[in-house]
Amino acid sequence: MPEYTTPMRDVQFVLKELLHSGDHYEKLPSEEALGDDLLDAILNEAAKFAENVLAPLNREGDEQGCQWQQGEVITPPGFKEAYQQYVEGAWPGLSASVEYGGQGLPGSLGVVISELVGTANWSWGMYPGLSIGAVRCIEAHGSDEQKDIYLNKLVEGTWTGTMCLTEAHSGSDLGLLRSKAEPRADGSYNISGTKIFISAGEHDMAENILHMVLARLPDAPAGTKGISLFIVPKFMPDHEGNVGERNSVSCGSIEHKMGIKGSATCVLNFDDATGFMVGEANTGLTQMFTMMNAARLGTAIQGLCMSEGAYQGAVAYARERLQMRALTGPKNPDGPADPIIVHPDVRRMLMTQKAITEGQRAFLYWIALLVDKAAYGNEQEYQDADNLLALLTPIAKAFCTETGFEVANLGVQVLGGHGYIREHGMEQIVRDGRIATVYEGTTGIQALDLIGRKVLGSGGKLLKGFTKQVYHYCQDHHKEDAMKEFIEPLQKCNKEWGDLTMAIGEKAMENPDEAGAAAVDYLMYGGYLVLAYMWAQSAKVALDKLDGGTEEEAYYRSKVQTARFYFQRILPRTLSHFASAKAGAEAVMAIDEDNFIF
Amino acid sequence: MPEYTTPMRDVQFVLKELLHSGDHYEKLPSEEALGDDLLDAILNEAAKFAENVLAPLNREGDEQGCQWQQGEVITPPGFKEAYQQYVEGAWPGLSASVEYGGQGLPGSLGVVISELVGTANWSWGMYPGLSIGAVRCIEAHGSDEQKDIYLNKLVEGTWTGTMCLTEAHSGSDLGLLRSKAEPRADGSYNISGTKIFISAGEHDMAENILHMVLARLPDAPAGTKGISLFIVPKFMPDHEGNVGERNSVSCGSIEHKMGIKGSATCVLNFDDATGFMVGEANTGLTQMFTMMNAARLGTAIQGLCMSEGAYQGAVAYARERLQMRALTGPKNPDGPADPIIVHPDVRRMLMTQKAITEGQRAFLYWIALLVDKAAYGNEQEYQDADNLLALLTPIAKAFCTETGFEVANLGVQVLGGHGYIREHGMEQIVRDGRIATVYEGTTGIQALDLIGRKVLGSGGKLLKGFTKQVYHYCQDHHKEDAMKEFIEPLQKCNKEWGDLTMAIGEKAMENPDEAGAAAVDYLMYGGYLVLAYMWAQSAKVALDKLDGGTEEEAYYRSKVQTARFYFQRILPRTLSHFASAKAGAEAVMAIDEDNFIF
Repeated sequence: MPEYTTPMRDVQFVLKELLHSGDHYEKLPSEEALGDDLLDAILNEAAKFAENVLAPLNREGDEQGCQWQQGEVITPPGFKEAYQQYVEGAWPGLSASVEYGGQGLPGSLGVVISELVGTANWSWGMYPGLSIGAVRCIEAHGSDEQKDIYLNKLVEGTWTGTMCLTEAHSGSDLGLLRSKAEPRADGSYNISGTKIFISAGEHDMAENILHMVLARLPDAPAGTKGISLFIVPKFMPDHEGNVGERNSVSCGSIEHKMGIKGSATCVLNFDDATGFMVGEANTGLTQMFTMMNAARLGTAIQGLCMSEGAYQGAVAYARERLQMRALTGPKNPDGPADPIIVHPDVRRMLMTQKAITEGQRAFLYWIALLVDKAAYGNEQEYQDADNLLALLTPIAKAFCTETGFEVANLGVQVLGGHGYIREHGMEQIVRDGRIATVYEGTTGIQALDLIGRKVLGSGGKLLKGFTKQVYHYCQDHHKEDAMKEFIEPLQKCNKEWGDLTMAIGEKAMENPDEAGAAAVDYLMYGGYLVLAYMWAQSAKVALDKLDGGTEEEAYYRSKVQTARFYFQRILPRTLSHFASAKAGAEAVMAIDEDNFIF
Repeated sequence: MPEYTTPMRDVQFVLKELLHSGDHYEKLPSEEALGDDLLDAILNEAAKFAENVLAPLNREGDEQGCQWQQGEVITPPGFKEAYQQYVEGAWPGLSASVEYGGQGLPGSLGVVISELVGTANWSWGMYPGLSIGAVRCIEAHGSDEQKDIYLNKLVEGTWTGTMCLTEAHSGSDLGLLRSKAEPRADGSYNISGTKIFISAGEHDMAENILHMVLARLPDAPAGTKGISLFIVPKFMPDHEGNVGERNSVSCGSIEHKMGIKGSATCVLNFDDATGFMVGEANTGLTQMFTMMNAARLGTAIQGLCMSEGAYQGAVAYARERLQMRALTGPKNPDGPADPIIVHPDVRRMLMTQKAITEGQRAFLYWIALLVDKAAYGNEQEYQDADNLLALLTPIAKAFCTETGFEVANLGVQVLGGHGYIREHGMEQIVRDGRIATVYEGTTGIQALDLIGRKVLGSGGKLLKGFTKQVYHYCQDHHKEDAMKEFIEPLQKCNKEWGDLTMAIGEKAMENPDEAGAAAVDYLMYGGYLVLAYMWAQSAKVALDKLDGGTEEEAYYRSKVQTARFYFQRILPRTLSHFASAKAGAEAVMAIDEDNFIF
């Protein structure tokens, strides 16, 4: 079983040295100043909780899974107790507003904590994770009364939240959803319908569950413009938040899944359940997107979590497992063979894992800072951050989960046959992680959002906001000899992504299928570019430290070496994505749908 | 649950139209002429067995798995009865020699049958699959007495075989194995040691099991040159093959794995078990390679099986699932939405699956013909076929399993959330298939075999045997207008692979790590090139049919369209592999092994 050790040095590198989060925190209207000491204390506490409480429950959570019994869901051994500790540690309210009992710390810090929690035990992390979306949504769109009743409980963690979107016939296409909401005389609604794939939809960890449900009013227009959002509590609360009688929402069954077995994926039946509308009628989808964006970043983090977990397991095994001699002569002459970390192909796998994992961390922590800025910055800061987020969120979600799945599979591969055996835990990372490219919008959906709504939809404006920033970075550093190996390919790719955009955009004006056929290759290109940008910046920080003299020479040298590996061996993937994206839609769409199988 | 339908049209296309197997069969010294009628009858019977008997057991086999009880292994419901039917149908002896009760049909036909069986139920297929290797090994290296006693039983299928190589500390590095063989006065041996990961090592499907065991004689040299091969029967047979008392080999446990749960993966304890040496002392590894080559082709087939299974499931779902409208306007205006097969990104996934699946089939059936030729051809035919096999077998194994795993995952992706749920069967294909890039030599091991032993080891001779053939094919067809779009990129890649070989070879003379660091990218490049060669030939056959007039216009047109997709959207992956392979070992090897994690 792989043990989890918080990658504290790299977390600190990204937060402090790469992103200068301290400067950023200072500007936030946080109730409590988040200086280095407090930051370190919080990180250390979270690390302890992840390593000592959550990680030990992870394997058993997979083996036992959740049990459904007459509508009740029993979570795996220890999950409930761990959640109790989490509540007692006041973690649910870490980045919630002080007004509702939170600690008012930056949301970006919450993202860091969610990496630690999620790598240690992704299934467990989904329960509190879903609540964060509900908090954001009620904060943004709820009435004062709703905030008073519900937010305190969610922030305390005594209640948890859900997102009830999907129905059997309505997944990516929410316009098809049929759940109904009929107004009652008292201002509440009768909610009816069946939702599926509801994570944390039923469980035994909290006193109450608040379902955020999409449904249609009787007179609602068809499609996505006729969807409203409702709060449907599992138990009806009074005005003080004391739970009362059971609402008529029930868990009909839980899914038997490939992985995340400790996370209950529920069928929820709403049978004239009492619901309360959030915000205006027929604006439910927009409101739900408040949660969806948080959820997309939360799922992008799953990419990082599976990468980190698989990387740690693979490095540990590769340093211990003795098989064959190094091609360049024995490295462990007194042993029967050399540790497999000496073999170039094992190195290639470990370096691929390292370059992607650390690159993802830099990327996602940066996005998290942008979310802070969009929430708290002045108009200009808000606009700049929001534009970048609009562009980068679909990339973060799709690219980090796709590459995370690759890194997870490399973990199995490094362990060989042992990787395929359950007790080693590596295959669980693959199974748990496989859902990440699917839920909260598949890779294909993210790619369409990126190229259609964001890039072409803004006439290229959102794209330029990013490529200009990269361009300026390159201009600032292209004369530095040591940076040349990073800046030149970064600049080239940055320009090429723009050219690719133009080429696709032109074709898409003639035929909209052109955007769809290129979308995923286009997104993946962008992902590798973003990581190149992060790696160039990381190399710069490390080179400066090495120049200035440091006691951590080995650490900073490994950063530069990993950046070099990324640029030499990973970034060339853009070549294939470029060619494939540019090839056009014709070959993709040519075959008649009846002629796929004969 | 996905139903399995034999892709008979494509099987026939590859066998008859692409590879002209009829001409090939005529030249074989087969006891029974394999004309079209007999071939079709055998294929139809195999299809029925796969579809009606094996496929229905696949899901339950995964859910129930094998059970270990005090050293006995109980296979999943129906497995035993299906095996009985298989034996009654005389399938085990299909391509075994008539002398030992087989039907003497071409081994290449057996490979086709193994695709059908393996797609329907890979776990089940492993039991008879392992026997094929044992038959080949005893045929090639056994004494006449061993052949008399054992071969008839294996060919009948009343006994099955295993390959006992791996030990806990000795996986890819067989030189480390420690199992002992001590000579007895009667010429037999005392075999002692523990073997792990032994597929079909214990089960309830056959009367007896013959373990082919690698072990060391007391005076054996260290390393791979001191390994001998022994037959260790589960039950001791008399000279008529009647099973007698139990030998002292026992199954200590079975592994709990990510997938192939219906296949028993056993720990086998040999405790002074009675064994009989096969062939000469200390030549066990060479003899085992007789089985390993068959096993590598057999595992390559698993790549095709997972591709085919995932492709069928994805197409069926994509044609039925209604979500959103086509970007170019409604295609199903009377329904609530269009089937997702109209969406370009879904198309991209299905076309990727189709292009890889059908390409793999052409590749692997071709290899299977080469195995026939190497076995039965004259000296020149033998040499040509053997040279091609030496080069192409590691590519077939690694490339088809790597791309098969990609296609399997696309199957999950097309189904979205439903793909992650066990009852739909798509995630099982991923779990069952994940082992394929690992066992019978990992992708990394295959790649080292290819670039080290085969390509550089032969001074490029083996490579040229293949690239010359492609070159001549291109010369033969480059003037045909309709073939230009295929021949030009094929020719370019063919030359480029040679250039890449030279570049790596030169660097590897200075530093052997250069070969290792480039190996997997080099192999994958080769795989995409081989598939391009198969697709160019497939397009040519189809174009000729369309030119000549055919009633199957839709079928042949879809072949050409798929070839086009392959060349436009898949073959460009060579660009990345080329750049990455050429980048060299330095960035791969730079980090000190202690500096991966801080």
